[in-house]
Amino acid sequence: MTATDDDEEVKQANQGFYRAFESLNIDNMRGAWATGDVTCVHPGWPLLKGVERVMDSWKRIFENTAMMQFTITGAVVRVEGGSAWVMCTENINTLVDGKVAEAKVQATNVFMKIEGRWLVVHHHGSPLGVTS
Amino acid sequence: MTATDDDEEVKQANQGFYRAFESLNIDNMRGAWATGDVTCVHPGWPLLKGVERVMDSWKRIFENTAMMQFTITGAVVRVEGGSAWVMCTENINTLVDGKVAEAKVQATNVFMKIEGRWLVVHHHGSPLGVTS
Repeated sequence: MTATDDDEEVKQANQGFYRAFESLNIDNMRGAWATGDVTCVHPGWPLLKGVERVMDSWKRIFENTAMMQFTITGAVVRVEGGSAWVMCTENINTLVDGKVAEAKVQATNVFMKIEGRWLVVHHHGSPLGVTS
Repeated sequence: MTATDDDEEVKQANQGFYRAFESLNIDNMRGAWATGDVTCVHPGWPLLKGVERVMDSWKRIFENTAMMQFTITGAVVRVEGGSAWVMCTENINTLVDGKVAEAKVQATNVFMKIEGRWLVVHHHGSPLGVTS
Protein backbone atom coordinates (compact mmCIF):
# COMPACT_ATOMS: atom_id res chain seq x y z
CA MET A 1 0.00 0.00 0.00
CA THR A 2 1.40 3.39 -0.95
CA ALA A 3 1.54 6.43 1.31
CA THR A 4 -1.20 8.00 -0.82
CA ASP A 5 -3.58 5.12 -0.16
CA ASP A 6 -2.88 5.42 3.55
CA ASP A 7 -3.44 9.20 3.42
CA GLU A 8 -6.81 8.62 1.76
CA GLU A 9 -7.77 5.93 4.27
CA VAL A 10 -6.87 8.21 7.18
CA LYS A 11 -8.86 11.09 5.65
CA GLN A 12 -11.84 8.76 5.37
CA ALA A 13 -11.38 7.60 8.97
CA ASN A 14 -11.32 11.25 10.04
CA GLN A 15 -14.54 11.91 8.12
CA GLY A 16 -16.00 8.76 9.70
CA PHE A 17 -15.20 10.12 13.16
CA TYR A 18 -17.15 13.31 12.38
CA ARG A 19 -20.07 11.36 10.85
CA ALA A 20 -20.21 9.39 14.11
CA PHE A 21 -20.10 12.67 16.04
CA GLU A 22 -23.00 14.08 13.97
CA SER A 23 -25.03 10.91 14.47
CA LEU A 24 -25.05 11.60 18.24
CA ASN A 25 -25.07 7.79 18.60
CA ILE A 26 -22.66 6.31 21.14
CA ASP A 27 -22.38 2.97 19.30
CA ASN A 28 -21.27 4.76 16.13
CA MET A 29 -18.75 6.78 18.12
CA ARG A 30 -17.42 3.70 19.90
CA GLY A 31 -16.91 2.07 16.48
CA ALA A 32 -14.67 4.92 15.33
CA TRP A 33 -12.31 4.50 18.32
CA ALA A 34 -9.73 1.96 19.35
CA THR A 35 -10.19 0.37 22.76
CA GLY A 36 -7.86 0.45 25.77
CA ASP A 37 -5.61 3.40 26.54
CA VAL A 38 -7.25 6.01 24.33
CA THR A 39 -7.29 9.67 25.40
CA CYS A 40 -9.49 12.70 24.71
CA VAL A 41 -9.51 16.44 25.36
CA HIS A 42 -12.80 18.23 24.67
CA PRO A 43 -12.63 22.05 24.41
CA GLY A 44 -11.87 23.37 27.91
CA TRP A 45 -12.00 19.89 29.50
CA PRO A 46 -9.08 18.14 31.21
CA LEU A 47 -7.53 15.03 29.64
CA LEU A 48 -9.75 11.93 29.78
CA LYS A 49 -7.97 8.57 29.89
CA GLY A 50 -9.29 5.14 28.93
CA VAL A 51 -12.05 4.15 26.55
CA GLU A 52 -14.78 3.97 29.20
CA ARG A 53 -14.22 7.52 30.50
CA VAL A 54 -13.90 8.79 26.95
CA MET A 55 -17.15 7.11 25.86
CA ASP A 56 -18.93 8.42 28.99
CA SER A 57 -17.92 11.94 27.92
CA TRP A 58 -19.39 11.41 24.43
CA LYS A 59 -22.62 10.08 25.98
CA ARG A 60 -22.92 13.25 28.08
CA ILE A 61 -22.25 15.46 25.05
CA PHE A 62 -24.76 13.56 22.91
CA GLU A 63 -27.44 13.69 25.65
CA ASN A 64 -27.13 17.48 25.76
CA THR A 65 -27.10 18.10 22.01
CA ALA A 66 -30.15 18.21 19.73
CA MET A 67 -28.25 18.64 16.45
CA MET A 68 -24.65 19.04 15.42
CA GLN A 69 -23.26 19.46 11.90
CA PHE A 70 -19.58 19.54 10.97
CA THR A 71 -17.84 21.04 7.99
CA ILE A 72 -14.16 20.08 8.18
CA THR A 73 -11.65 22.49 6.60
CA GLY A 74 -7.88 22.76 6.34
CA ALA A 75 -7.22 19.09 7.07
CA VAL A 76 -3.54 18.15 7.17
CA VAL A 77 -2.83 14.39 7.26
CA ARG A 78 0.45 12.84 8.31
CA VAL A 79 0.91 9.08 8.18
CA GLU A 80 3.98 7.42 9.73
CA GLY A 81 3.85 3.63 9.61
CA GLY A 82 0.82 2.40 11.52
CA SER A 83 0.23 5.77 13.19
CA ALA A 84 -1.30 8.91 11.73
CA TRP A 85 -2.43 12.32 12.89
CA VAL A 86 -4.87 14.73 11.33
CA MET A 87 -5.02 18.44 12.13
CA CYS A 88 -8.24 20.13 11.02
CA THR A 89 -10.76 22.86 11.77
CA GLU A 90 -14.24 21.80 12.80
CA ASN A 91 -16.82 24.34 11.61
CA ILE A 92 -19.79 23.40 13.76
CA ASN A 93 -23.48 24.25 13.62
CA THR A 94 -25.40 23.29 16.73
CA LEU A 95 -29.01 23.73 17.73
CA VAL A 96 -29.23 25.42 21.13
CA ASP A 97 -32.61 26.52 22.51
CA GLY A 98 -34.09 26.31 19.03
CA LYS A 99 -31.43 28.56 17.50
CA VAL A 100 -28.49 27.60 15.33
CA ALA A 101 -25.15 28.55 16.87
CA GLU A 102 -21.84 28.43 15.04
CA ALA A 103 -18.48 27.56 16.52
CA LYS A 104 -15.00 26.73 15.34
CA VAL A 105 -12.82 24.10 17.00
CA GLN A 106 -9.22 23.28 16.11
CA ALA A 107 -8.63 19.55 16.39
CA THR A 108 -5.74 17.11 16.48
CA ASN A 109 -6.90 13.52 15.88
CA VAL A 110 -4.42 10.65 16.28
CA PHE A 111 -5.18 7.32 14.58
CA MET A 112 -3.66 3.84 14.66
CA LYS A 113 -4.18 1.12 12.07
CA ILE A 114 -5.51 -1.85 13.99
CA GLU A 115 -6.47 -5.05 12.17
CA GLY A 116 -6.64 -3.12 8.90
CA ARG A 117 -8.79 -0.23 10.18
CA TRP A 118 -7.66 3.28 11.15
CA LEU A 119 -9.15 3.96 14.58
CA VAL A 120 -9.03 7.07 16.77
CA VAL A 121 -6.68 6.75 19.76
CA HIS A 122 -6.60 10.44 20.74
CA HIS A 123 -8.79 13.48 20.06
CA HIS A 124 -7.91 17.00 21.15
CA GLY A 125 -10.38 19.77 20.36
CA SER A 126 -9.88 23.40 21.40
CA PRO A 127 -11.84 26.61 20.84
CA LEU A 128 -10.79 28.75 17.90
CA GLY A 129 -13.19 31.66 18.43
CA VAL A 130 -16.90 31.85 17.71
CA THR A 131 -18.40 33.32 14.55
CA SER A 132 -21.67 35.25 14.30
CA MET B 1 15.51 -0.97 22.95
CA THR B 2 12.49 -1.80 25.10
CA ALA B 3 9.23 0.14 25.15
CA THR B 4 10.19 1.44 28.60
CA ASP B 5 13.42 2.96 27.29
CA ASP B 6 11.49 4.64 24.51
CA ASP B 7 8.90 5.93 26.99
CA GLU B 8 11.68 7.44 29.08
CA GLU B 9 13.35 8.99 26.04
CA VAL B 10 10.07 10.54 24.91
CA LYS B 11 9.42 11.90 28.42
CA GLN B 12 12.86 13.48 28.33
CA ALA B 13 12.24 14.91 24.86
CA ASN B 14 8.99 16.40 26.16
CA GLN B 15 10.84 17.95 29.11
CA GLY B 16 13.47 19.22 26.67
CA PHE B 17 10.76 20.94 24.62
CA TYR B 18 9.57 22.81 27.73
CA ARG B 19 13.15 23.70 28.79
CA ALA B 20 13.58 25.20 25.29
CA PHE B 21 10.27 27.06 25.74
CA GLU B 22 11.43 28.45 29.12
CA SER B 23 14.75 29.54 27.65
CA LEU B 24 12.88 31.90 25.29
CA ASN B 25 15.71 31.16 22.84
CA ILE B 26 14.70 30.38 19.26
CA ASP B 27 17.80 28.27 18.58
CA ASN B 28 16.98 26.04 21.54
CA MET B 29 13.40 25.74 20.34
CA ARG B 30 14.46 24.96 16.77
CA GLY B 31 16.70 22.19 18.16
CA ALA B 32 13.74 20.48 19.84
CA TRP B 33 11.76 20.27 16.56
CA ALA B 34 12.03 18.23 13.40
CA THR B 35 12.27 20.16 10.15
CA GLY B 36 9.92 20.12 7.15
CA ASP B 37 6.19 19.55 7.49
CA VAL B 38 5.80 20.20 11.20
CA THR B 39 2.61 21.77 12.56
CA CYS B 40 1.64 23.82 15.61
CA VAL B 41 -1.49 25.15 17.31
CA HIS B 42 -0.93 27.75 20.03
CA PRO B 43 -3.89 28.42 22.37
CA GLY B 44 -6.57 30.17 20.29
CA TRP B 45 -4.38 30.35 17.15
CA PRO B 46 -5.14 28.63 13.84
CA LEU B 47 -2.96 25.74 12.64
CA LEU B 48 0.55 26.77 11.54
CA LYS B 49 2.19 24.60 8.87
CA GLY B 50 5.89 24.23 8.07
CA VAL B 51 8.94 24.74 10.23
CA GLU B 52 9.53 28.36 9.19
CA ARG B 53 6.03 29.56 10.07
CA VAL B 54 6.14 27.56 13.29
CA MET B 55 9.52 29.04 14.28
CA ASP B 56 8.31 32.56 13.39
CA SER B 57 5.46 32.04 15.85
CA TRP B 58 7.87 31.03 18.61
CA LYS B 59 10.01 34.10 17.88
CA ARG B 60 6.96 36.34 18.29
CA ILE B 61 5.97 34.62 21.54
CA PHE B 62 9.52 34.86 22.91
CA GLU B 63 9.82 38.55 21.95
CA ASN B 64 6.68 39.31 23.94
CA THR B 65 7.53 37.27 27.03
CA ALA B 66 9.82 38.37 29.87
CA MET B 67 9.71 35.11 31.82
CA MET B 68 7.90 31.81 31.53
CA GLN B 69 8.13 28.79 33.84
CA PHE B 70 6.49 25.42 33.25
CA THR B 71 5.48 22.72 35.68
CA ILE B 72 4.26 19.73 33.67
CA THR B 73 1.66 17.48 35.29
CA GLY B 74 -0.41 14.47 34.29
CA ALA B 75 1.84 13.46 31.40
CA VAL B 76 0.64 10.41 29.48
CA VAL B 77 3.15 8.98 26.98
CA ARG B 78 2.28 6.66 24.12
CA VAL B 79 5.02 5.29 21.87
CA GLU B 80 4.16 3.40 18.67
CA GLY B 81 7.22 2.48 16.62
CA GLY B 82 9.04 5.64 15.60
CA SER B 83 6.13 7.90 16.54
CA ALA B 84 5.00 9.02 19.98
CA TRP B 85 2.53 11.40 21.51
CA VAL B 86 2.47 13.00 24.93
CA MET B 87 -0.61 14.51 26.53
CA CYS B 88 0.13 16.79 29.49
CA THR B 89 -0.95 19.85 31.42
CA GLU B 90 1.32 22.90 31.30
CA ASN B 91 1.09 24.84 34.58
CA ILE B 92 2.60 28.15 33.51
CA ASN B 93 3.91 31.14 35.44
CA THR B 94 4.54 34.20 33.30
CA LEU B 95 5.70 37.72 34.14
CA VAL B 96 3.26 40.26 32.71
CA ASP B 97 3.64 43.96 33.55
CA GLY B 98 5.83 43.05 36.51
CA LYS B 99 3.26 40.66 37.99
CA VAL B 100 3.27 36.88 37.96
CA ALA B 101 0.26 35.40 36.14
CA GLU B 102 -0.71 31.74 36.23
CA ALA B 103 -2.30 29.78 33.42
CA LYS B 104 -3.06 26.18 32.56
CA VAL B 105 -2.73 24.81 29.05
CA GLN B 106 -3.63 21.28 27.93
CA ALA B 107 -1.13 20.05 25.36
CA THR B 108 -0.77 17.26 22.83
CA ASN B 109 2.83 16.92 21.60
CA VAL B 110 3.65 14.51 18.77
CA PHE B 111 7.23 13.27 18.36
CA MET B 112 9.11 11.28 15.74
CA LYS B 113 12.42 9.49 16.25
CA ILE B 114 14.74 10.91 13.59
CA GLU B 115 18.38 9.81 13.42
CA GLY B 116 18.14 8.53 17.00
CA ARG B 117 16.53 11.64 18.51
CA TRP B 118 12.89 12.22 19.43
CA LEU B 119 11.89 15.52 17.85
CA VAL B 120 8.63 17.48 18.00
CA VAL B 121 6.58 17.30 14.78
CA HIS B 122 3.31 18.72 16.17
CA HIS B 123 2.34 20.79 19.21
CA HIS B 124 -1.24 21.61 20.14
CA GLY B 125 -1.83 23.77 23.21
CA SER B 126 -5.28 24.88 24.36
CA PRO B 127 -6.55 26.89 27.31
CA LEU B 128 -7.70 24.90 30.35
CA GLY B 129 -8.92 27.81 32.50
CA VAL B 130 -6.89 30.31 34.50
CA THR B 131 -6.13 30.01 38.19
CA SER B 132 -5.87 32.93 40.63
